[in-house]
Amino acid sequence: MMNAYHSLTERFKRLSRLEHLSAIAGWDMQTMMPSGGSQARGEALAELSVMHHEILTQSSTGEWLDRAAQESLDDDQRANLTEMQRHYTDAALLPAELVEAKALAGSRCEQAWRQQRIDNDWHGFKQNLKPVVELSRQEAKLRAAVQGSTPYDALLNLYEPGMTSEQLDTLFGDLTQWLPELLQQVVASQPPLPALPATRIFPISQQKALAETVMQLLDFDVTQGRLDVSAHPFCGGVPSDVRITTRYDSAEFLSALMGVIHETGHARYEQNLPKHWAGQPIGLARSTAIHESQSLFMEMQLGRSQPFLQRIHPLICQHLTAANALSLNDLVRQVQHVSPGLIRVDADEVSYPAHIILRYEIERSLINGEVEVEDIPELWDDKMQRYLGLSTAGNYRDGCMQDIHWTDGSFGYFPTYTLGAMYAAQLFNAMQTQLPKVHEAIKIGDFTPVFQWLNDNIWCHGSRYPVNTLIRQATGEILNPRWFKQHLQHRYLGR
Amino acid sequence: MMNAYHSLTERFKRLSRLEHLSAIAGWDMQTMMPSGGSQARGEALAELSVMHHEILTQSSTGEWLDRAAQESLDDDQRANLTEMQRHYTDAALLPAELVEAKALAGSRCEQAWRQQRIDNDWHGFKQNLKPVVELSRQEAKLRAAVQGSTPYDALLNLYEPGMTSEQLDTLFGDLTQWLPELLQQVVASQPPLPALPATRIFPISQQKALAETVMQLLDFDVTQGRLDVSAHPFCGGVPSDVRITTRYDSAEFLSALMGVIHETGHARYEQNLPKHWAGQPIGLARSTAIHESQSLFMEMQLGRSQPFLQRIHPLICQHLTAANALSLNDLVRQVQHVSPGLIRVDADEVSYPAHIILRYEIERSLINGEVEVEDIPELWDDKMQRYLGLSTAGNYRDGCMQDIHWTDGSFGYFPTYTLGAMYAAQLFNAMQTQLPKVHEAIKIGDFTPVFQWLNDNIWCHGSRYPVNTLIRQATGEILNPRWFKQHLQHRYLGR
Repeated sequence: MMNAYHSLTERFKRLSRLEHLSAIAGWDMQTMMPSGGSQARGEALAELSVMHHEILTQSSTGEWLDRAAQESLDDDQRANLTEMQRHYTDAALLPAELVEAKALAGSRCEQAWRQQRIDNDWHGFKQNLKPVVELSRQEAKLRAAVQGSTPYDALLNLYEPGMTSEQLDTLFGDLTQWLPELLQQVVASQPPLPALPATRIFPISQQKALAETVMQLLDFDVTQGRLDVSAHPFCGGVPSDVRITTRYDSAEFLSALMGVIHETGHARYEQNLPKHWAGQPIGLARSTAIHESQSLFMEMQLGRSQPFLQRIHPLICQHLTAANALSLNDLVRQVQHVSPGLIRVDADEVSYPAHIILRYEIERSLINGEVEVEDIPELWDDKMQRYLGLSTAGNYRDGCMQDIHWTDGSFGYFPTYTLGAMYAAQLFNAMQTQLPKVHEAIKIGDFTPVFQWLNDNIWCHGSRYPVNTLIRQATGEILNPRWFKQHLQHRYLGR
Repeated sequence: MMNAYHSLTERFKRLSRLEHLSAIAGWDMQTMMPSGGSQARGEALAELSVMHHEILTQSSTGEWLDRAAQESLDDDQRANLTEMQRHYTDAALLPAELVEAKALAGSRCEQAWRQQRIDNDWHGFKQNLKPVVELSRQEAKLRAAVQGSTPYDALLNLYEPGMTSEQLDTLFGDLTQWLPELLQQVVASQPPLPALPATRIFPISQQKALAETVMQLLDFDVTQGRLDVSAHPFCGGVPSDVRITTRYDSAEFLSALMGVIHETGHARYEQNLPKHWAGQPIGLARSTAIHESQSLFMEMQLGRSQPFLQRIHPLICQHLTAANALSLNDLVRQVQHVSPGLIRVDADEVSYPAHIILRYEIERSLINGEVEVEDIPELWDDKMQRYLGLSTAGNYRDGCMQDIHWTDGSFGYFPTYTLGAMYAAQLFNAMQTQLPKVHEAIKIGDFTPVFQWLNDNIWCHGSRYPVNTLIRQATGEILNPRWFKQHLQHRYLGR
């Protein structure tokens, strides 16, 4: 007779196949699908999530989990079982009707938001956002009751298992102590942006060829992935077929290029997840913040560093006719320029955390019932003034309506961006300490030891260890914001 | 309480959503997927068909079908119920193990065939083909027992409901009476092929722009579909998002162009299926032969006709630098050139039926147990000699190993190509009779009345009527091969 653990692995393999289809159909929706296909696609994807929820929460899953806990398992199997239990509990505690209602309200809000944002229509948007917040609060309460946490923390845990508001308050509290001043210092002391080249057309075909060359340099495996175009860049697909996207602007090439480096960081994590655990929860990426740490390691730690820019400078000059006279020095100044602005996705790495802390504070209060949707614009403006010295009064489009995350109820996601930035700095620092010669290798354009280190310390482990264990094994300590501070001081103030 | 018919519509809607995902993931596999993605994709698609089979054959489907037959339904609902019953019976009479075993054997045979064909390795191929034939025979027997038909007819009915070998023998028997002689006459009397232009490079980008212009001319709705590239051209996707493909050869443009016109015929049928029946069996295309009749109507009846070529001639000269001096006369001679050869997919419309009849005769004997896999090469060579005067002895690659159809057990499919050609000729003739002015409209490049006629007579009906009813309503009679004969005589012998 098949033991319960084995039955569970079969069930989770089946679920992973549904996730495969969802990933590919979702990627297609963002990159290939003509407009007329959206309704049928939305329905097909919703049907798939309902079936996924049905299969995962069958009563036999719960029974097998109980029985498997008594079976003789090795450490890996036990870690896999822990992840299975987590996915099951996360899904089973929600009634199917709430899952469906939230999906529908989120989809409605997101669809309307695309135009409402353009129209700066806060009044229209908030009508759709209210039910999303209401349903998210219901979800949070149900989750919190099981976890014994605050409602917000229960949502945060969906993205970052084990993380709490209390820890975030400490981490982000630390940041708010020194970051605003550091930002001011950088802005005051940095050289002015170099004048742009007279000819400023960078044909998409040239940018694409450059992007693919840089992906190759970063060991992206083209037999197991693709690069395409979408309105909002992302990394999707499945580990054996990773789909990354970018968007090109023929008047400016750095945004697409740095975006590709960022998504390649996500992609290499996915491509190097443990193949012998494929289709099992233990074979998945550890968490949203760890995923983001890999993209930011590649983009911020490596990609925007002087030695890396030195390596790709000739490639840029070679591929882009209009940039063939760009000096290395001007390239570095462009890539490392700091300029606080209204838009999160355009922010440099020094101002970025301010955007995140602001959103974290608002969404936590919102989910915990301390503020209402009506209060968001004023809170947003207050915090923008405080953290970045900028006003968004009346400008909803570039203020609280700029992001997609809240429209479909992804509360708890935002903090993972800045957690990822801090993890990335800590990992890069640990790698440099453990591999004294890595700096020399990077300088001559040999990134092999960098990727080997990431593989051995992060990628190959999948979800084998909790986040804190994973990070302690890799760096000797749990998350410590000092490495992020040190990185920013070093890069932007030369300390 | 929900009545049984309504429950069935909900179940079939769910199934159509799974079919949507299968169609998109299948399209992606042929057009976008990097090589490394194939194993996981194959597993995901297989899982999806198993789930589809599970849901369709749940015992409640059978109970609802029985109850719905007693409910008060209008004519459309009753026609929908008939289709539901057919899909259910087709699926339910097969044990799940046979479905899976055939899928695995077919997938193994097809995968290996791709290389074995290149290597002309009949010995290796036949080892994989034997289990496919064996499982197809088992399937055919089970189906035949329920239908009270011969085994082969039971498979034929999966593609062409209502068609029998007896009818095919009459139809194809008629063809074999006059086609070989007609072919000889055409070959003997046609002018030699015009000399090719000195410059023979037709850049892919120019060919693609031309293809898209011609698709527009044929009213392909680009908000509900796409054109891409694949090794084997096909029409896939879903009615609101139809994906057609072609393959370009920079040394020759007509093959890709005619292929696009062909696939556009399939696409317009799909795009114009009745929207109010979307997701229900009655809303699907009627049959494989009727589908093929729409692509061949567009390619053979319209696309290769003198007036149509006259309309697109300036577009060709304008888009293709290397064809800017091509005369209309030379274009027509190229497009209407007849030349018997070994390869079915390269065949002109006069030799094509010979390729089909040969395959039909062999696959029928194979499924009915009258011949064995070992006998195929000799039978193939005999029939090629008889029908086309060509030998394939020892040349398996360009003989019995050239097609994909048998590798995955799609026995019964081949006849639909020639049935489609005959339906197309009959439909075109009926349209001309019913719309005396249509020829004038086509001549000036106005295809609106053509598409309106197809829409009113074929597209808008989905699976509302059995094939014979549909064709009788459209043309006044059931399938009659004389219209195909008349078409060939008219076009190729000027009679």
